[in-house]
Amino acid sequence: MTYRAPLAEIEFILSRIIAADRLAETERFAEATAETRAAILEEAGRMVENAIAPLQRAGDLHPARLENGVVRTSPGFAEGFRAIAEGGWVGISADPEHGGMGLPFTLGTVVNEMTAAACLSLSLCPLLTQGQIEALEHHASDDLKALYLPKLIDGTWTGTMNLTEPQAGSDVGALRTRAEPNDDGTFAITGQKIFITWGDNDFAENVSHLVLARLPEASKGTRGLSLFLVPKLIPDEAGKPGVRNALKVVSLEHKLGIHGSPTAVLAFEGATGWIVGEPGDGMAAMFTMMNNARLGVAAEGLGIAEAATQMALAYAAERKQGRTPVEGSGAIIDHADVRRMLLRMKTLTFTARAICLDTALSTDMARAAPEAERAGWKARAAFLTPIAKAFSTDIGNEVANLNIQVHGGMGFIEETGAAQFARDARITPIYEGTNGVQAMDLVGRKLSDGGAAAHALLAEIEAGAKASGDSELARRVLAAHAEVARATDWMLNAPEINDRFAGAAPYLRAWALLLGGWHFLKAAEDPGHAPLAAFHIRQAMAEIPGLLVAATEGAAPLYALSAEALVG
Amino acid sequence: MTYRAPLAEIEFILSRIIAADRLAETERFAEATAETRAAILEEAGRMVENAIAPLQRAGDLHPARLENGVVRTSPGFAEGFRAIAEGGWVGISADPEHGGMGLPFTLGTVVNEMTAAACLSLSLCPLLTQGQIEALEHHASDDLKALYLPKLIDGTWTGTMNLTEPQAGSDVGALRTRAEPNDDGTFAITGQKIFITWGDNDFAENVSHLVLARLPEASKGTRGLSLFLVPKLIPDEAGKPGVRNALKVVSLEHKLGIHGSPTAVLAFEGATGWIVGEPGDGMAAMFTMMNNARLGVAAEGLGIAEAATQMALAYAAERKQGRTPVEGSGAIIDHADVRRMLLRMKTLTFTARAICLDTALSTDMARAAPEAERAGWKARAAFLTPIAKAFSTDIGNEVANLNIQVHGGMGFIEETGAAQFARDARITPIYEGTNGVQAMDLVGRKLSDGGAAAHALLAEIEAGAKASGDSELARRVLAAHAEVARATDWMLNAPEINDRFAGAAPYLRAWALLLGGWHFLKAAEDPGHAPLAAFHIRQAMAEIPGLLVAATEGAAPLYALSAEALVG
Repeated sequence: MTYRAPLAEIEFILSRIIAADRLAETERFAEATAETRAAILEEAGRMVENAIAPLQRAGDLHPARLENGVVRTSPGFAEGFRAIAEGGWVGISADPEHGGMGLPFTLGTVVNEMTAAACLSLSLCPLLTQGQIEALEHHASDDLKALYLPKLIDGTWTGTMNLTEPQAGSDVGALRTRAEPNDDGTFAITGQKIFITWGDNDFAENVSHLVLARLPEASKGTRGLSLFLVPKLIPDEAGKPGVRNALKVVSLEHKLGIHGSPTAVLAFEGATGWIVGEPGDGMAAMFTMMNNARLGVAAEGLGIAEAATQMALAYAAERKQGRTPVEGSGAIIDHADVRRMLLRMKTLTFTARAICLDTALSTDMARAAPEAERAGWKARAAFLTPIAKAFSTDIGNEVANLNIQVHGGMGFIEETGAAQFARDARITPIYEGTNGVQAMDLVGRKLSDGGAAAHALLAEIEAGAKASGDSELARRVLAAHAEVARATDWMLNAPEINDRFAGAAPYLRAWALLLGGWHFLKAAEDPGHAPLAAFHIRQAMAEIPGLLVAATEGAAPLYALSAEALVG
Repeated sequence: MTYRAPLAEIEFILSRIIAADRLAETERFAEATAETRAAILEEAGRMVENAIAPLQRAGDLHPARLENGVVRTSPGFAEGFRAIAEGGWVGISADPEHGGMGLPFTLGTVVNEMTAAACLSLSLCPLLTQGQIEALEHHASDDLKALYLPKLIDGTWTGTMNLTEPQAGSDVGALRTRAEPNDDGTFAITGQKIFITWGDNDFAENVSHLVLARLPEASKGTRGLSLFLVPKLIPDEAGKPGVRNALKVVSLEHKLGIHGSPTAVLAFEGATGWIVGEPGDGMAAMFTMMNNARLGVAAEGLGIAEAATQMALAYAAERKQGRTPVEGSGAIIDHADVRRMLLRMKTLTFTARAICLDTALSTDMARAAPEAERAGWKARAAFLTPIAKAFSTDIGNEVANLNIQVHGGMGFIEETGAAQFARDARITPIYEGTNGVQAMDLVGRKLSDGGAAAHALLAEIEAGAKASGDSELARRVLAAHAEVARATDWMLNAPEINDRFAGAAPYLRAWALLLGGWHFLKAAEDPGHAPLAAFHIRQAMAEIPGLLVAATEGAAPLYALSAEALVG
């Protein structure tokens, strides 16, 4: 099965659904016109189809492995990464001052989607590097920026994020890794970090680790954390990697999926590090990039959904089985239940893409719009981000599983490739904040403005649905809008924060389905999208009332049985 | 993680929810009293915990493999199968005339659930053998029965089912394997069969294959199929296996899960076979055992759901992360979103178990009840079977995936074991008729009585809910009952069968949730179950209206885009 970059559909969403042409009206992104956008995405699509998609299965069959302390990457991955780096795609949204393309995250998100769709495990290497670039751009000293950013942006070096420790997963405040000041202004970093994606590789000249650690006398919890840059090889002033730093790869994990991505346990044994930002500002630096990192993972879920949908459609159109209602066909695509699965795959993917790109656009506008509008865009991006991350990764899994089901027995055979999508996708609802944590973020931090961001988005949806005319589909979207608005009021008035948390996951899902309905109303003007719009608005959105019942039950029912009684 | 046979919960459902004591009131199952039942299940539980559960990971790490045409099974599987055979569990429901225990399928289903929970890949070997025993009991000649049944029932030999061919999966009528009459009354079988579960092994003295094939001049489609018994080694009259038959294992599949179960491509090259039943009656024989085979697969989904729930509860009670609303705890079981997942796992498992055992009971009563009642029980069993199969295997996957999510990053690491449940479970919605085929069976064949079986079950539910008193939960169950009844009328009046097929899957799911609500109403009288009942009835059943919207939209919306437009 050959992945095809879905450029026409992406352009449809960019131009017709989220009005991405607005970007070129800003000074910052004046170059991102519709023509430039099309040319850039076409080039990215070609690179992904030719250089990345062929690596998908090799990465799965030949996992990265640790040999005498050295990580050996999967066959072809070095060349694949080179293709990404040479196209400038690592730095697509990075600052031109250090060699980046300076393009909007909106386009970076499209490229990330396509790279993840073609080969998720390889795509994580540039994605993590992008996260590090962003953190350094915002928080590092000018010296560090000058030394590291050009190398990271052009892909000579790669970057990692070191947060998790065995006792500290979602609870970052429990981190124990220590940072002791050296006499020369550097720090000695000591501790063990786990689940480090692309913790090492054999194709980059150097690997730069960003590490959360605790200074002596630092307070407990997240406020005592600082951020350090800890290179694998210590560069001289000219940027030439020199002596090995005191850190090592202890082991690689044996995982359900993304076998081509080396997930490392890293031991820092008094490794030399440079502080990024001020002491105690580690979490603030993390938060800077967290929204975009979440959007990156959202694009992974979306990419897998797209690739799995393409695979299912191709198989269903070929595979003959039984008599179908469509005369003379016999292809399983014409069986009603298979059609139902395919339409669900297609419409969930549309919804995830519209939400992801709308979120990316908001992030861009928060930096590029006229000053007075920026706070609104920023709040909009912050509100949409947990929805984009949780929904896209949830449906990435759902769609990958439907692809297996469409394949029947063949879906369970590894050679088919359908199973790999499901295995690879399974990590995305977990990392970069589990989807439960995303939902808690939505009803906690993102509603802590008294509902301003939520109400602003609800007002947009209402105005959009009313402006679309008095159709049956518009009435359904408005009805769902009213229900989500009611549930939002319930959340804002819930007596305890735990009552919000109890219903957070179904509340987030209801929001995503409503956003999909709103975007589909706009899409319905296009004959090729109208039947998909009707399917989503009539059938998928019918789930919203049930979700909101669960969303607004409060915490008490969850604790009616004690933990002991539940375990039994 | 150690699987524990959930005997108390099973006994609760047997005695309080489905009134299994009725079985002992029949002549056929007079021995199946509550005391005997408890003793038997306790013994089975001990065997499963001690001899089967320890094999789970070995089967995954060391898949069955083909060496010079011989299947080598996973380490310990020979001993595991021996434990099952020596306990008499292969023949728990087989006819005592040939060495079976003659116990109800209800108890057999419990044992199958526990065996599948402990090690799905091994459990398939006795399960397939049970299917063959049933087919032979009903359709084989007395000579064949006398020769094969004792060996299959005591586990000296194992049995397989050979249906699928590359061009014939769900469409059994497209089978091409040929059967040519020999002069001595036997037949020469030629053809290739794929996806043959436990197609061979190295621990049984012989393997007996049941093969669907076509006689010369037989008509096309399913009516031209006959069933043949084709042993690996041809037994002499005393039952001693002799010369090798002309069949071989061509290859084993490389699968997403159930690695310990050898899934074979079998080539029959003029192999000697004996006809089972009359020429052209192959499908009838298949149908005999199909209901029970489906129930067996349903028990697999249920078993995995139980095992995954046990694992998630144990982890969540141990793992500390962050501050919890329950003072002094810190265990993630006390975080609201984790609680929500655990309650969902627990309540879906309860619903699946109640439906599976109720289906098994109906099957038993269809043979054991007073003559006048049998047809009613038979129709009830037939109606419930596709619901049990599709729902239990769907939620087996959902619960296994929630178990991964509860584990966070650890869930993605293979050593944890959570991922294996999800991989193993993934085949169950596919084989023995995909869940789409189950749903089509429900709205097609099972409603072809004009709705008699559906209405009888709806009347039971209504009477039960009314008898439980005028509680808020009862009112909710009655409201859902009315909605499912309306959707049933819609199905019965739909203009085309394809309109039913279009909504079959959500209709089936709605039925399962309603059945769960009905069973939970009975369970609510028990304080340990009351909070679970409230959770299911208030939250899970809230999904029913949305499902029924999708169920009653008809086929037209699915075909509004042509197949070509959909593929794009």
